[in-house]
Order: sequence, then C-alpha cells, then structure tokens
Amino acid sequence: MALIVHKYGGTSMGSTERIRDVAKRVAKWMRAGYQMVVVPSAMSGETNRLLGLAKELSPLAVTPAVTRELDIVAAAGEQVSAGLLAIALHAEGVPAVSYAGWQVPIKTDATYTKARIESIDGARVHAELAAGKVVIITGFQGVDSGGNITTLGRGGSDTSAVAVAAALKADECLIYTDVDGVYTTDPRIVPEARRLASISFEEMLEMASLGSKVLQIRSVEFAGKYRVPLRVLSSFTPWDIALGEEAQSGTLITFEEDANMEQAIVSGIAFNRDEAKISLLGVPDQPGIAYKILGPVADANIDIDVIIQNLSHDGRTDFSFTVHRNDYARTLEVLKAQVLAHVGDANVVGDPKICKVSIVGIGMRSHVGVASKMFRTLSEESINIQMITTSEIKTSVVIDEKYMELAVRALHKAFGLEQAPA
Amino acid sequence: MALIVHKYGGTSMGSTERIRDVAKRVAKWMRAGYQMVVVPSAMSGETNRLLGLAKELSPLAVTPAVTRELDIVAAAGEQVSAGLLAIALHAEGVPAVSYAGWQVPIKTDATYTKARIESIDGARVHAELAAGKVVIITGFQGVDSGGNITTLGRGGSDTSAVAVAAALKADECLIYTDVDGVYTTDPRIVPEARRLASISFEEMLEMASLGSKVLQIRSVEFAGKYRVPLRVLSSFTPWDIALGEEAQSGTLITFEEDANMEQAIVSGIAFNRDEAKISLLGVPDQPGIAYKILGPVADANIDIDVIIQNLSHDGRTDFSFTVHRNDYARTLEVLKAQVLAHVGDANVVGDPKICKVSIVGIGMRSHVGVASKMFRTLSEESINIQMITTSEIKTSVVIDEKYMELAVRALHKAFGLEQAPA
Repeated sequence: MALIVHKYGGTSMGSTERIRDVAKRVAKWMRAGYQMVVVPSAMSGETNRLLGLAKELSPLAVTPAVTRELDIVAAAGEQVSAGLLAIALHAEGVPAVSYAGWQVPIKTDATYTKARIESIDGARVHAELAAGKVVIITGFQGVDSGGNITTLGRGGSDTSAVAVAAALKADECLIYTDVDGVYTTDPRIVPEARRLASISFEEMLEMASLGSKVLQIRSVEFAGKYRVPLRVLSSFTPWDIALGEEAQSGTLITFEEDANMEQAIVSGIAFNRDEAKISLLGVPDQPGIAYKILGPVADANIDIDVIIQNLSHDGRTDFSFTVHRNDYARTLEVLKAQVLAHVGDANVVGDPKICKVSIVGIGMRSHVGVASKMFRTLSEESINIQMITTSEIKTSVVIDEKYMELAVRALHKAFGLEQAPA
Repeated sequence: MALIVHKYGGTSMGSTERIRDVAKRVAKWMRAGYQMVVVPSAMSGETNRLLGLAKELSPLAVTPAVTRELDIVAAAGEQVSAGLLAIALHAEGVPAVSYAGWQVPIKTDATYTKARIESIDGARVHAELAAGKVVIITGFQGVDSGGNITTLGRGGSDTSAVAVAAALKADECLIYTDVDGVYTTDPRIVPEARRLASISFEEMLEMASLGSKVLQIRSVEFAGKYRVPLRVLSSFTPWDIALGEEAQSGTLITFEEDANMEQAIVSGIAFNRDEAKISLLGVPDQPGIAYKILGPVADANIDIDVIIQNLSHDGRTDFSFTVHRNDYARTLEVLKAQVLAHVGDANVVGDPKICKVSIVGIGMRSHVGVASKMFRTLSEESINIQMITTSEIKTSVVIDEKYMELAVRALHKAFGLEQAPA
C-alpha cells in the first residue's frame, strides 16, 4: 500500500472551514487506498501572534534560555492545528491521531528557534498506519536530547514533512500551499510568469535558497539527500477534484534529469529582497583572513549568503558578503566587537538596501554566454551590478533594491520564459 | 530555604501587561529568598477559543479518540502562558525555565478531558530550583502512561498547583485569582458578604464543591490529603505590596481548627446554579437498586451530586439525584437506554431548572437547631424545599432556580454573616 505524506501550510489551515477542507481532501486520498501522514502548519497568523506576545515581554537580547521559551510558545501553534485536523477527520468518519514532534519523537539538536532534525523514530507512526489511521504530525518542531521542545525556524514545517517522508520511506511528499506550483519567477512581479510542470532538484535548491518562497530550503536539501519525490501543489483547488488529476498537478521536483524535464537553458528567475551587504575595506590579504572575519559571524548564528573577495593591492584587499537584512545590525556589532581589531583595523561599510537576482537553469551547464546575456540585459536597463557570483547552474547579481522588479522583468523576457520550451 | 508555589488564573495571565505584573511579583518573592515554583493558567479566554474551534469542527458525539485530540488542542493554552511567563521573568533579570506537564512529568490516568493526577516526579524541578531558577509548570495538564497529553478538566490548574506543592513538599501554595479571598457568600448576590481570614479545610471543601467557584474542588481534596497549606488571594493588588502584608492577605485554608479559626456556627452560604434533578418513580425497593441506577450513569463519566432515596410503599420507592445541568440530557439517555428496563420500567421525571443552596460551618457540629433555622428562614420567604441533604458540617436544600438569590440573601442575614464573629 503506497504511503503518501501531505503537508499543509498556514493559509491552508487558516480557519475551521479550511481545516474541514483539508480533512475532506485527506479522507479522499485515504479512501482511495493510500496510507496517509499529514504534517500541518499552525493556522495562518498564529505563529506571528505568539511570537508577538513574546516580543512584547522581552525586548532584550535573546539568550539561549529565552529562545528555549520562545520555542515552547511557538510550538503551541502547530499542536493546536494538528489536534484540530484530527478532530475534523473524525467528523468525516476517518480515524486519525495526532502527534507532537516530541511524541514521535522527532529528535533535533538543541539550537532553539533554528534546530536541525537528527533522527525520526517511525515505529509509532507505522503502528498507527497499520491500524488504519491517518497520522498527523506537528510541523516545525521536535525535541532535543534533554527533552526540551525545539523549533526548526520559519518554514520548518516543509522540512518536517520531507524528513518524515524520508524516515517513513514514503512514496511521495505533497506540499500543499497557496500557490499551484513553482513558477519561472514570482507572478506578482512578472504577470507572464509560467508554472513549471517539473523542475530538477538542483534548480529547486537554487530557487528556494534565492527566495522564491515556495519551499523552505532545508526541506529541499532533505528531499535531495534522501531522494524523496516532492510535489508542490495548491490546497485551493476544490477538495473533490479527481484524485488522478490532483496527483499530476502542481510542480514535481524530480531527481531524473531525462524524465519529463523541460530542456530550457534557464528555468527561472529567483530573487531575494531581504539582503544586506557588508564590506571590509583594506584588510590584510593573508591566509586565514576569511575565517577571521566570518568565523565570529557564523558563531553568532548569522547565516552568510554571498561572499566575495576582490583582488589585492599592496597586500590589502576588500572583503564583501551579504546577510539577511534582519541580521545586518547584529553583524556590524559582531564585526566591531570581535573582528576589526584583528584584521588591521579595517574600515567596515554596509548597505542594508540591496537585493539579489539570479538566473537558474540546468541548461546553463552546457550553454556558454548565458551569464553575459544576463549582464547585457541589465546594462541595457542601466542597472549597476554591485556583486556577481556564479555556480554551475546559476548566476547571481547583487543590485540596488529599487531596481529589483525591473531586473526580474527584463531577465524573464530576455530568456523567453513566458513560453514553454519546444 | 522555604519553597513556595504560586498559581495564577486566566485573568491574572490575561495580557502581556498582566503577565509582566506576575513576573514582577514572582521576582519579588524570589529576591526575598524563597524558592519559587509557578503554575499559570492559559490566558483568559484562550481555552474557550481553542475548544470553540474544535467544536466548530466536530458537532458529533465525543469519543475517546476525539477527547484525546481535544486535550492536545486545549493544553496548548497553558504551554503558551508558561513560556511567556518565563520570558517575562528573564526580562526582569530572574532566571526561569518552563516545563509542560509531560516534561516534569506529571503522570495522570488516560481519562481525557477529566484526567486524574497519579504521580509527579520532582527530580527535574528540584534540580532547577537548586540551580537558582524559578520553575514554571503548565497548569491543567499531564501525560498518561502511553505518552499522550491529558488535561484535568476545567479549573484543573488549581489541582496542578496543589499537587505540585504536595509532591515538592512546598511550605505553602498561594492561589492568585481575581477575588481577594473566600467570602461568606458571593458578594454579587449579597453585597454585605464578608471575606473570611481563614476557613477550615472541611468547610472549604463544602464551599468549593457547592459552587463558590473560588477553588476547584479536586485541588482542595488534594490539599487535604497531603496537608498542603493553601491561601487564596488576589493578583490585582499592586505587585510591589510589602511581602509580609501580601503573605497574610486573602483567605488561609487551614488544617488546625484552633489556630486563628473564626468560631462562627455557620461560616458561609454556598450555592450551585447549574444543577438538574432527575427522579425515578416507583422503582423496586431491593438491595442493589442504587447501583443498578447510578452505575451506568457513573460509567458514562457523569458526576452525580445529591442522591436521595425516599421511604418505600408497597415494595416500591422513589429515587432522586442531581447532576450538572450540561449532563441532564445525556443522563436521561443513559437511563432510558441502560437502566429503566432493569428497574421495573420505572417512570423517569426531571427538572433542569433547580439549584442547590447550602449552609456550611464546622460550628454546626456542636450546635443544634441550625438546620431548622434554615428551614424556617426559607419558609418565611415561601420558598418550597424540594430535596434536603445533610452532613456533619453542612445542610443543603434543592429549590426552584428562580428563588436562589432570595434564599441566599435571607440565609446570609438570618445567620448574621455580615458581621465578624466576636
């Protein structure tokens, strides 16, 4: 009997009406003969409401003792939606049982608010499935070795779902969300953006990490590591759509490049609005300098995105990197307190109003001139490129935030993404 | 070092401002040298909101599989308030850590929505106290032997607090609520009602069970069983009131009848508005008849309050009892489905609009004529008494609901409760 994992996001769980809809949809799959595991997010707005209460109480710097409590507060949102979904399934006449992360258990490390899943015990879930029940597992959370509740960070429910699918060796993991798949770029910016029927795992990884917001990056990493077939689809289609049709909708994230892959050179345009740029000017160009600068930043649990080190002049070089805009002020503090004195009293300058735009495509591997076409397109729009990074299947540029939409539109048109490839 | 347990009700935790107030009060006690354990309820309205969502999803009869999920949903409310209070204490500079019932663990049976505490492991809590932290424990909830979340029923946080105080051998358990103590009766009905400085455990048990609503009945039973000194006091006094004054405020529930006891004959008038009366007419007067009638009712988890069996005539008798009004319809169903055919096809009649009024006082033990004074008072007001039950320290009457306030006022005056005893 095939085992399917469904994951429903916050808007899909946003009201009792929506939850009832989810229950009917899950019941349809159950009755069609699938073993069903469902991972729901908190009802939309709930996590923000809970963390808002916490923030009102503690404007101070956040210590591990406080983040532990933040996780206890935030985890309640998924606990509620999991229980409510089980109740809704019972009302549909379908036996169901919900488990919080600690009950499965989903074991994580102890990095509160950003924990990583270490292992999932599937025994209890398999036993419930064998007993004919739908098993509901709270997204977003787990338990550390000390028995403390942990959360996986924003978007963590996607990761929960994929990790659960991997641990249970599920046949497919369906991520239900408020969009109907992965698009060539954000349709709110480019109305001509087109839904992709399939996308390779590597491309999805670049699209997710660069801010297309459809799937959480770690969930895609997990899917790749454990080769979990993943599908992104909409929970806003009528729940009673024919199951065969629903199972083929959305966008499939695939591991087989030949099968059903669209052979475009560039598959999509990704962008990230929430970046900030920091440069250290005139640091000594010596071995270990990158670690001296970025080690303390990483130790403060700040994620670093783009890193660029320019050529040196007179034994000194400029070192630039980008972080999430929310971490901008804290990064500057860390640099001033722990780094600058050790790198020749370098000057630090920054800009919290930049963005990153990327073209992504497996086809870039075997086609030359893709990056130069990108640069020419931006040049024709008089957009200044501040930083450039490349990988095998993407090229990213950092530009002034105010040009972002213009850049995305121009690139989408230049690479002909509004039309499906022949 | 003395160990104190504080319990804060929903209105005391009703907003971030109120939670900050609680944190400041707890910090004051902590700084005065006490080891502190705090048991908070959910923020006011939250449990109703959560159970309201569940009810929207499942109008059906409630099975154990559904009540298990109701508990998962409801338990989230206390989890949030516990975490928020820990965060607020950190903001006050006081180290604090919160634990859900399952983390302590507080072990209960598996009667979802009405679970009973079986044991509490104090090891983890004592270790945190020894490390100088305030320990916050979620009220209202525990975990059964299968690792499932359970809740203790409405008002269960009082029981949690007293059980925790007993398990930790606390020196005193302070129940902070929205009233400043136990009154001779409800001041909303009798403006002259007077706060009692102390009340005996036995009287409090009668007052609580009869609906004075200040303390949950099981918490008083627990306090009696483990002799936990209990104090009811207000969380609406300014948090920075002198600690010595605060520690003497409210009403002390005491186990020593001589010490500081007011020597009134009657200490208070209790009442319960939410009762319903059911009578079985003409049942065979034979051994085991009471069990035949009430066994199936109890098995359906319906609490029975007053039970009266009248004299028999011609081998048949009338059997009456009262239940909570919410259980009225279900009790009739149980009787019709499982009982009537086995008790000589007795007639069943009922009245869901009755109330119970009681006079309570240890002094009644040694004073005759107390009950007859009660009956005379009601007679003078032309109130018909439908049922009477008595114990050593209370006399209760069941009357038509519409006379309840009149009866309470008349009795309060007749027993001179507006004045402190000499």
